[in-house]
Amino acid sequence: MSQQSVPVVGPAGAREGAAVVELFGDRLAAAVKRRESQLVLGLDPNPTQLWPRALELAGGADGDSPAARAARAVAAHCRLVIEAVADHCVAVKPQLAWFERLGAPGWLALSEVVQAAREAGLLVVADAKRGDVDVTALAYAEAFLGETETPFGTVPGLGADGLTVNPLLGADSLEPFVKVARGSGAGLFILARTSNPGAVDLQDRELAGGMTVSAHVAGLITSLGTAGIGQSGLSDIGAVIGATAPHRLERLREAMPHAVLLLPGVGAQGGRVEDLAAAFAPGRAGGLPSASRSIVGAYLSEGGSPEVAANDAAARLRELAWTVSG
Amino acid sequence: MSQQSVPVVGPAGAREGAAVVELFGDRLAAAVKRRESQLVLGLDPNPTQLWPRALELAGGADGDSPAARAARAVAAHCRLVIEAVADHCVAVKPQLAWFERLGAPGWLALSEVVQAAREAGLLVVADAKRGDVDVTALAYAEAFLGETETPFGTVPGLGADGLTVNPLLGADSLEPFVKVARGSGAGLFILARTSNPGAVDLQDRELAGGMTVSAHVAGLITSLGTAGIGQSGLSDIGAVIGATAPHRLERLREAMPHAVLLLPGVGAQGGRVEDLAAAFAPGRAGGLPSASRSIVGAYLSEGGSPEVAANDAAARLRELAWTVSG
Repeated sequence: MSQQSVPVVGPAGAREGAAVVELFGDRLAAAVKRRESQLVLGLDPNPTQLWPRALELAGGADGDSPAARAARAVAAHCRLVIEAVADHCVAVKPQLAWFERLGAPGWLALSEVVQAAREAGLLVVADAKRGDVDVTALAYAEAFLGETETPFGTVPGLGADGLTVNPLLGADSLEPFVKVARGSGAGLFILARTSNPGAVDLQDRELAGGMTVSAHVAGLITSLGTAGIGQSGLSDIGAVIGATAPHRLERLREAMPHAVLLLPGVGAQGGRVEDLAAAFAPGRAGGLPSASRSIVGAYLSEGGSPEVAANDAAARLRELAWTVSG
Repeated sequence: MSQQSVPVVGPAGAREGAAVVELFGDRLAAAVKRRESQLVLGLDPNPTQLWPRALELAGGADGDSPAARAARAVAAHCRLVIEAVADHCVAVKPQLAWFERLGAPGWLALSEVVQAAREAGLLVVADAKRGDVDVTALAYAEAFLGETETPFGTVPGLGADGLTVNPLLGADSLEPFVKVARGSGAGLFILARTSNPGAVDLQDRELAGGMTVSAHVAGLITSLGTAGIGQSGLSDIGAVIGATAPHRLERLREAMPHAVLLLPGVGAQGGRVEDLAAAFAPGRAGGLPSASRSIVGAYLSEGGSPEVAANDAAARLRELAWTVSG
């Protein structure tokens, strides 16, 4: 049996009947060990930059709306990418914006992608960056990680294993996410220091007392995560730290010794896996480098078929991360 | 002709053929004057707290999934609420989480609600609180305020007139939202000081130099909004300031003299319209008090039918805001 056919018990499965839900940090540590990879495949399917084969697969059915056809192409593209690189990855990270822009058909496509990732043995981190007041935060948490009670029966959520969350609204806005995530064996990745240049505008600013906003958020993450540390030593409350900010990484890691660090921005945005060693201090699953365009679009710069170029790019990143974390 | 049948030219209409797009501040000022109201109806449709009549309207069709039936009930509920109170309002503010939790059928329901609001002559502010790196921010902006190009044709976005946005990622993450909003006559409401208790954790903290994080964001909002100030004196880049924080309002208003302030948290969350006078400094359309549960759930505390109780509650809030802003 190949690695990717090993089923990863998802949040929904974890809830069914079982009295004990395995904490996210332990689920992740086991998955990283099993797959010998920490690589996260970012899925940001721009409808004008899909693999040619996906457009072919989505062809026909001219009676359908542009949204329905584009959503079918997006789903086909993501399935092809997952098939091409799943062997080298531990998780996928679909970016919600690219599905939402296609409306209801986009949400159907997103569900299909989650299903395809799960069938390939991959964890799913929904990159939604949600954040809102408590009652709304609970609704978002149930949408992505839980389920919704209605007078017509229970509506399942997206079934993601992890969710990115924005901390601007403070602790009471994060607690409902923590509650739902912990109850279903899922994890959170709270934005501590993002990968974009604009991170200097607010996140890198010093607060009175000398701590940066990012470091302050790191303290909040540690506090929320203490009750969710598993046997692996990893907590279910992690952080997003852009791979483009290695100079911030060491101190933020010290402030969050048990957090899993999701590290987007590898490749196209300029982040280098070689600079991320501090992320792996608590163990190999302590850091999850995430790459999107540098894998999915590798054929544009490297030549060859999209599938082979993506597989090669993912193999290199996986190997690099495994070595750096060893 | 009654007020609510006057069509409000939406972003899509503004784009068609016309060389000149009317700026959001001017569109809003005209709508406030025409409707003699600054009241925003918050729509947070909890599927377990819908109006009884909505459940009846959504009945039948037992072959449908719970999600499809719940989404139908949510759409019916929102339509009933809009019919009951539209006369007293200038805009609706659907909260995305309550639609997303129902998946693809939830997005269909959201589109229906936007359509119903538009038919009632109301502006639509999508309360999504999105924020992401630039390429993703553009995708979100096009999802809510613009349209998406695909190989299968153009996919229209939600068609909202306004969008709430989270500034944690800094200026470069906000600029794509500004560009799309300005190009379509829509507005942004950037989170400056939210209505929840947790706002003290980060937003109320002082930066080195003495300015709070909220005041720093206010400076960013003013800077982004300068090029979008209309003849009304109002900019297309506004701010969210919780009605629960009137002690913060005066200073933040001084830092954002042209911003439209969206003021959620009136009623159930404890905010009082009487305390919001500073919001209206640049004119009556300078402040938009927003209430949800205190209107939609008024019948639970006041008795009577949901429709009549909601209409009464909205009438009181509208009158109060009009007086305070006079």
